[in-house]
Amino acid sequence: MKTHLDDPEGGGIAAPAEPGREESSRATWRERYREVRGLTEALCTPLHTEDYVIQSMPDASPAKWHLAHTSWFFETFVLKPGLAGYRGSDPHYAYLFNSYYNAVGPMHCRAQRGMISRPTVQEVHEYRRQTDEAMEGLIARASAEEWRQVEPIVELGLHHEQQHQELLLTDLKHMFAQNPLRPAYAGPRRTVHAAGPGPVRWRHYEEGVHWIGHEGGGFHFDNESPRHRALAPAFQLADRLVTNREYLAFINDEGYRRPEFWLSLGWMTVRDQKWTAPLYWEQPDGDGWREFTLRGLGELEPEAPVTHVSYLEAEAYARWAGARLPTEVEWEIAAMAEPLRGSFVEARRFHPSPDAGDGDRTAAEAGNGSEPDEAGRDAEAAELRQMFGEAWQWTRSAYSPYPGYAAPAGAIGEYNGKFMCNQYVLRGGSCATARSHFRRTYRNFFPPEKRWQFTGIRLARDVR
Amino acid sequence: MKTHLDDPEGGGIAAPAEPGREESSRATWRERYREVRGLTEALCTPLHTEDYVIQSMPDASPAKWHLAHTSWFFETFVLKPGLAGYRGSDPHYAYLFNSYYNAVGPMHCRAQRGMISRPTVQEVHEYRRQTDEAMEGLIARASAEEWRQVEPIVELGLHHEQQHQELLLTDLKHMFAQNPLRPAYAGPRRTVHAAGPGPVRWRHYEEGVHWIGHEGGGFHFDNESPRHRALAPAFQLADRLVTNREYLAFINDEGYRRPEFWLSLGWMTVRDQKWTAPLYWEQPDGDGWREFTLRGLGELEPEAPVTHVSYLEAEAYARWAGARLPTEVEWEIAAMAEPLRGSFVEARRFHPSPDAGDGDRTAAEAGNGSEPDEAGRDAEAAELRQMFGEAWQWTRSAYSPYPGYAAPAGAIGEYNGKFMCNQYVLRGGSCATARSHFRRTYRNFFPPEKRWQFTGIRLARDVR
Amino acid sequence: MKTHLDDPEGGGIAAPAEPGREESSRATWRERYREVRGLTEALCTPLHTEDYVIQSMPDASPAKWHLAHTSWFFETFVLKPGLAGYRGSDPHYAYLFNSYYNAVGPMHCRAQRGMISRPTVQEVHEYRRQTDEAMEGLIARASAEEWRQVEPIVELGLHHEQQHQELLLTDLKHMFAQNPLRPAYAGPRRTVHAAGPGPVRWRHYEEGVHWIGHEGGGFHFDNESPRHRALAPAFQLADRLVTNREYLAFINDEGYRRPEFWLSLGWMTVRDQKWTAPLYWEQPDGDGWREFTLRGLGELEPEAPVTHVSYLEAEAYARWAGARLPTEVEWEIAAMAEPLRGSFVEARRFHPSPDAGDGDRTAAEAGNGSEPDEAGRDAEAAELRQMFGEAWQWTRSAYSPYPGYAAPAGAIGEYNGKFMCNQYVLRGGSCATARSHFRRTYRNFFPPEKRWQFTGIRLARDVR
Amino acid sequence: MKTHLDDPEGGGIAAPAEPGREESSRATWRERYREVRGLTEALCTPLHTEDYVIQSMPDASPAKWHLAHTSWFFETFVLKPGLAGYRGSDPHYAYLFNSYYNAVGPMHCRAQRGMISRPTVQEVHEYRRQTDEAMEGLIARASAEEWRQVEPIVELGLHHEQQHQELLLTDLKHMFAQNPLRPAYAGPRRTVHAAGPGPVRWRHYEEGVHWIGHEGGGFHFDNESPRHRALAPAFQLADRLVTNREYLAFINDEGYRRPEFWLSLGWMTVRDQKWTAPLYWEQPDGDGWREFTLRGLGELEPEAPVTHVSYLEAEAYARWAGARLPTEVEWEIAAMAEPLRGSFVEARRFHPSPDAGDGDRTAAEAGNGSEPDEAGRDAEAAELRQMFGEAWQWTRSAYSPYPGYAAPAGAIGEYNGKFMCNQYVLRGGSCATARSHFRRTYRNFFPPEKRWQFTGIRLARDVR
Repeated sequence: MKTHLDDPEGGGIAAPAEPGREESSRATWRERYREVRGLTEALCTPLHTEDYVIQSMPDASPAKWHLAHTSWFFETFVLKPGLAGYRGSDPHYAYLFNSYYNAVGPMHCRAQRGMISRPTVQEVHEYRRQTDEAMEGLIARASAEEWRQVEPIVELGLHHEQQHQELLLTDLKHMFAQNPLRPAYAGPRRTVHAAGPGPVRWRHYEEGVHWIGHEGGGFHFDNESPRHRALAPAFQLADRLVTNREYLAFINDEGYRRPEFWLSLGWMTVRDQKWTAPLYWEQPDGDGWREFTLRGLGELEPEAPVTHVSYLEAEAYARWAGARLPTEVEWEIAAMAEPLRGSFVEARRFHPSPDAGDGDRTAAEAGNGSEPDEAGRDAEAAELRQMFGEAWQWTRSAYSPYPGYAAPAGAIGEYNGKFMCNQYVLRGGSCATARSHFRRTYRNFFPPEKRWQFTGIRLARDVR
Repeated sequence: MKTHLDDPEGGGIAAPAEPGREESSRATWRERYREVRGLTEALCTPLHTEDYVIQSMPDASPAKWHLAHTSWFFETFVLKPGLAGYRGSDPHYAYLFNSYYNAVGPMHCRAQRGMISRPTVQEVHEYRRQTDEAMEGLIARASAEEWRQVEPIVELGLHHEQQHQELLLTDLKHMFAQNPLRPAYAGPRRTVHAAGPGPVRWRHYEEGVHWIGHEGGGFHFDNESPRHRALAPAFQLADRLVTNREYLAFINDEGYRRPEFWLSLGWMTVRDQKWTAPLYWEQPDGDGWREFTLRGLGELEPEAPVTHVSYLEAEAYARWAGARLPTEVEWEIAAMAEPLRGSFVEARRFHPSPDAGDGDRTAAEAGNGSEPDEAGRDAEAAELRQMFGEAWQWTRSAYSPYPGYAAPAGAIGEYNGKFMCNQYVLRGGSCATARSHFRRTYRNFFPPEKRWQFTGIRLARDVR
Repeated sequence: MKTHLDDPEGGGIAAPAEPGREESSRATWRERYREVRGLTEALCTPLHTEDYVIQSMPDASPAKWHLAHTSWFFETFVLKPGLAGYRGSDPHYAYLFNSYYNAVGPMHCRAQRGMISRPTVQEVHEYRRQTDEAMEGLIARASAEEWRQVEPIVELGLHHEQQHQELLLTDLKHMFAQNPLRPAYAGPRRTVHAAGPGPVRWRHYEEGVHWIGHEGGGFHFDNESPRHRALAPAFQLADRLVTNREYLAFINDEGYRRPEFWLSLGWMTVRDQKWTAPLYWEQPDGDGWREFTLRGLGELEPEAPVTHVSYLEAEAYARWAGARLPTEVEWEIAAMAEPLRGSFVEARRFHPSPDAGDGDRTAAEAGNGSEPDEAGRDAEAAELRQMFGEAWQWTRSAYSPYPGYAAPAGAIGEYNGKFMCNQYVLRGGSCATARSHFRRTYRNFFPPEKRWQFTGIRLARDVR
Repeated sequence: MKTHLDDPEGGGIAAPAEPGREESSRATWRERYREVRGLTEALCTPLHTEDYVIQSMPDASPAKWHLAHTSWFFETFVLKPGLAGYRGSDPHYAYLFNSYYNAVGPMHCRAQRGMISRPTVQEVHEYRRQTDEAMEGLIARASAEEWRQVEPIVELGLHHEQQHQELLLTDLKHMFAQNPLRPAYAGPRRTVHAAGPGPVRWRHYEEGVHWIGHEGGGFHFDNESPRHRALAPAFQLADRLVTNREYLAFINDEGYRRPEFWLSLGWMTVRDQKWTAPLYWEQPDGDGWREFTLRGLGELEPEAPVTHVSYLEAEAYARWAGARLPTEVEWEIAAMAEPLRGSFVEARRFHPSPDAGDGDRTAAEAGNGSEPDEAGRDAEAAELRQMFGEAWQWTRSAYSPYPGYAAPAGAIGEYNGKFMCNQYVLRGGSCATARSHFRRTYRNFFPPEKRWQFTGIRLARDVR
């Protein structure tokens, strides 16, 4: 079995220790910089100017804002402190495009991001162009000492941009869903009449003490460290994600009307928000369910993983199903033994896909067929399916610091630590996550009532 | 004295009774149709695509929505019922661009108008083009009988569009004001160091019974009728609008901190909204006041009429000043004796201007100098100044039906009557009102706490 | 015909000009003071201590607060300025029991009145006792000059207390209605199977100029003056109030589901508040309507006047019925010609009663039979029925100042004038109004969406 | 060292296995039943009737409601299912006094508990009396088999009542704090000029795997089980609670104005709620701090433990102090080695008290001196001070299920499990907790932004 050491997590570019490799490292960085920045813009190709402007809820941001904020990050944390003679952008940008870094200065109110028609999309693209020019100059010409200083921030900035790529897609989806015209971001999906993944099989894990958290020199977020030992009792993990068909059985069993399945906060939310199904599910005439995806409104695909469920719904579903959600420790123990492959954003499916089952692992699927499906599934059957990509998997673990964790000093320290309250950990990445951004130790987190990310459910069970 | 019969109100095109004049009438209608529709689009010339999309508050609408809704009006009330074989626009438009006409069908939620990136601006312009084509066809080819039916609705539709022109400007102003960049809609105003209008003089009116409301065959809204007699006690009316300088004295006398000047609702609003000055006034460093106008942020012009004040502020100011607001009957009595001239939107000033005083009535001013100032002031000194155009004048009259008023049947009946509750009447038009839309009997109305229209203050006094 | 001069409005005690009558006047005042203050306490007889404490909505106040605030009024406006050596109550009371008099000082937040368990009911009664002692001392011993100063304030204070008696009853009713136990304030009403008032007859009034507003020396509120002339076109007035049976026909005709009957604000309120019937109507099992009254929950009485309807509902009902609401000028013209009699609070019915129709005017009814029905109806048939008492009659007149009105200086000037915005005038008194408090020129006012007062509907019609 | 086996947690009455002891067990139960129920009523002794009625915020409940709800619990879960022929209370009570047990039926809206003046306090006391009578009958006369069934529910009901005793005190405190009169629940505290507890000393704990959770047969809540092993890295724990003096240093260092100390949710809450200090701290004239306690408003006692801080504030304080909050595992590890003594509600201090320091452990203090201070401190100096009683200690552990936890079936299963979301664990009990209710494994929980409980801070540190 391949171990995770053979398959380095996340593609982080380890700072090379050997002299003489400096130059080729810079070229690699420039390439990676261009690749990440270019994907952001490529993801905007289907948009009209009007699509860039709207903030469809306080949690979301306009596409224009994502484009500008990711440049602001490089400008603020790399160029201004690190590039001599750098002459910044419009001084208002520092205010308009700061997200939440109090240490950097005051910021525009989050809920007002959709009130700003200027700078225009073209001006924002110009802002990106100028930032890129300065960044590439810095990458090319920084002294070794200077580079040593900024390299980690550049790497962080690229991962930051990749996070915003995912938000860009989910925020656009939310905006399009508000429009009675239900515009599609991408062309219609090829209908796949999947045979279905078959019944869940449970994989067994023995009690043990495991090392948890990031190991080694590659890139990782601060919240993945310190690496530490954790004791996990024996548990079982489902070999695949919960499907729409299964979730529909919960709905049809009056799942959204029976308080006994729900956390107290869940039941309150169901009633206040009048939830009757996952986000983006519609039942226009009271019969067949339809689902709005980035490819438009279509029939609900029964064998696809359920997505756009909150923690509260995942938790209620699990209780209804006689199971529970895994802890993040359990998830990581299991993930470490699996090959890191799955359907990430590079596959351009933009929606979780059915698992074809054991007999059908070779069926190639592609969103638009235009690029190599490098990050797609491979044909070799694994014990655990859909472990990576597809849909973020809610864990029952509240997002909290690992033992010994301390946020870094300064603005960068605001990146992760300050959100460790009233959020739950999600693991595994999604169809909107960049493969090169992901690691097995990656800890995503969202409040338990949020549903606009590509979130799904994998069940676990106690061993009694 | 010129009577108002010599100076027909509002330029309404009276339906011609004489045969043989039918054809020239149609040509006149086509011309007027083009003129009004063209002005809407001309007012959008300074906009970027992004500027069309945003709804900066529930009271406001995106520019794109105004463009589409005014077409929807012609489509719904003229083309669909009146043009045989008319094939409408996208069926969703009937839902998306209905404002509040319950009789026509369900409508998109007002507060969600800014969530809609599609149809795009270009598609909305195409919608207008198709509507115009169909409308011009109808104007040209309708039979005399058909035309008799639709003519009043066409005329209403054009006045409707002119109302939205004014809202378009005030909504854009509000949106730009939310942006820390404070974008300007038009170029900077020519600074006018006006000498000031001099002290207020009071014009005296004797007690009497007067005819109030629209008379004759020209266009008017239903709320201006029935013409009826009203008894007005003797009163005095200020010969001009209250200036920024005068309003500043109220502020400096702690006007916004002394409850004794305010209506109960006013005082609550001052505290809840933290009002300290009219809308769009800023005091960036605690000293000099600046004002955001459609021409950008600039110094407050002391001799210009105060604008963007609510009824509540106008009422408090009047009490502080030892006066009161006029009733709408008083205003109309006075207005009927004055020549209808003033600075309307055609002057393209986009802000109320100082009155140069008696000695300086010949100074021609223009917004951008590029078009003839047809609607500007003339040099002849009138007794009452700034009676028309500049800023809508709050009256102390709650908006209520004239004796004998009944709203027309059907959807058109929803135009005015259903708003006769918790609103106050404004008279006189503003710098954003089309001259050809205005009449002396025109009754505008807004809730007493709203400030984003070009609203101002003319004082009145009792005669004891 | 008796004129209103024969039947002085409201029982105001005109300041006697003749010397020698001073002493008997003081005795009369003491008697009236005791009578009014005593009724307040008598109205509290059915209450448990717990009933005094609760504020069931921001518009309402706890019974305890009404008891204390009415004492605060005398203390603040009579005793402190007028009684040498007066040593006031707990200094906190000035803050706790000021309602809205900014000129007097800061005040406890209105919405927090139900947060205050102390002072206890007993302490509040002690506060009333001390106030009464001081007031009676002042009435007895003030010099003629002193008395001349305070007499109008004493009279105002008593009318103020009578207003709070009405609020006390309506606030208690609202509180009891929140309780699933539906406690009754008074014993069950004697079921009256009234024959019904018969069809509405319309009384005709010719066009004319009338004097409006209070005349003569008796007590009146400032808002009833100045007396002035008003021109009223010809109109018709219904001879009686709208009944529950008639209002039910509006409901059964889908009145609450058809926007065409409603003002825009009305339709919004119907949907936001989910109104389907007047306040306090219930349909527990989807069939028969029940109504909660101060005598408990019982069957809806079809021939009783509809009550607890908002202006918005009254206006919609009138439109549905092909009529309109009267203006307050019309109402006053009609009222001046009618004998002032009706069912006021002294009748202790605590709910509007059916009118027995022409043939049955002698049927004496009583709430509990225990006291003389002094203020009840008499047997002589009048042209207009139910003109006074029973239920306040919504007019279509926004509450605004009479021509020449100016609020008095000082705190007393805050009594009426500052509420002249976004309220509508109600006329005629109700079953919760004291007869000795009422005058034909009395102008009550409430916001158009409020329903917890005893409000009803009398229709009017234009004469074409 | 005494182990916790010598000092059984919580005083639970273990079900006796031996025959023959049945009878004495019943007597013990009756005694314990009377004791607990009696304390609830004793805690109400200082109240006036008015004090029982008010709900000062949605989180709190009226005293009357606590009295009734705790009876409802016995009635619903013991008497109705377990006592043949039991004839229940008013059927409305089942609706009015259900808190959140969906399995039992619909319930009165929590936020409306203060709208209910009836049943009166006297009727509620009668409800308690009848319940007690029935309960004592059941305790005396149930067959052995019946008793076996109900005994655990009786025990749960008593612990449930003890939880409401604590809420009763904190809810009353909150209500009195809303009143500008600042009523005191109890007499003034004896001023203690404590010398101060001296500087914090850190107690060291080595890494290890520990058993966590309740052990043995005594009473415990379901959330304290299953007992399981947990791995804890080495850590240090402060030997005492943070004092007001120390917390004031945080305030004076601009703690409430510097975002760098705060969780993101904390900083938002500070700004939204305008927090500048713990709840109940006041600075009337901008200088000296005062604190409202159940004994009235007085000077802030510098050496007393800080209390009424939220998790968000505790977390920020810890960061400012260069430390962190303990996990609940760490806290339990430390607590297991300490003698279970401290100042609980039986001491009737009603506020956390200063620790006198090592030299002064013998100073006996008492709230009112009238009852034996059975639960007070003893004189033997422990390594860890203030570990139990005084103020609940926030842990950094989100409230989540222990490995293998499953909520019991039925309504009782709603007791704890459904709240395991967006809450944090508190440990140690408080001055308002009954000593006989408390165990070392006790897991209390509250949302991170709540402050009206007696919550305090004990710091921990990593060992690097």
